[in-house]
Amino acid sequence: MSEDLEYDVFSSTCPSRPVLEDVTGRWGALALGALADGPLRFNELRRHVDGVSQKMLAQSLQALERDGLVVRDVQSTFPLKVEYSLTPTGAVLAGKLLDLIGYLTTSMPSIITAQQTYDEAHTD
Amino acid sequence: MSEDLEYDVFSSTCPSRPVLEDVTGRWGALALGALADGPLRFNELRRHVDGVSQKMLAQSLQALERDGLVVRDVQSTFPLKVEYSLTPTGAVLAGKLLDLIGYLTTSMPSIITAQQTYDEAHTD
Repeated sequence: MSEDLEYDVFSSTCPSRPVLEDVTGRWGALALGALADGPLRFNELRRHVDGVSQKMLAQSLQALERDGLVVRDVQSTFPLKVEYSLTPTGAVLAGKLLDLIGYLTTSMPSIITAQQTYDEAHTD
Repeated sequence: MSEDLEYDVFSSTCPSRPVLEDVTGRWGALALGALADGPLRFNELRRHVDGVSQKMLAQSLQALERDGLVVRDVQSTFPLKVEYSLTPTGAVLAGKLLDLIGYLTTSMPSIITAQQTYDEAHTD
């Protein structure tokens, strides 16, 4: 238990905060979510995460690999095949992200209504 | 069921994607998490979300308010008291975020080890 108490994302200097940003960041979250269904090659992953640039996807995957959440596997075939997959910890986090995304998606009709009401109230 | 299928965060043009960014963004996620314990005034919230600027916190709260996830309540006391709280949908999303954050925090010892191993392997 005591080691849990060392880490607190609400503290700006805690090493858990940049990890949270790797996991929930714009492209990191979608990359983790896309890998939940199984390993993908870089270009397959890029098609799943619609709109991501090659550079941003590579950076996000590198951060997740460094955190031990994603594995980059280079298979010695010809041509070389590079596959990305989730580690057990990465898979749990991806599951929790997809749970959140699922609820958010289901809530979209009421969220859209809230946005419209807000925008009408804040129009000059 | 059919209305669920309309929304897909993996599509770059889906209106659910900016909402996901409001919910999981750097400050939005921490603001939602901080409000899970109950309503807070702006300055209380700012102390909970260590490191956030006044401007970024205000922007994050405004986006979450527009999405119908946070309520800004101005009480007609003197001096004026402004409190932020979660809507029912916001509370569910905050719970799912805290579930993810809890697992991430518990995993930090192994994540730190992974980072050290990665950094040693990638040193010149």
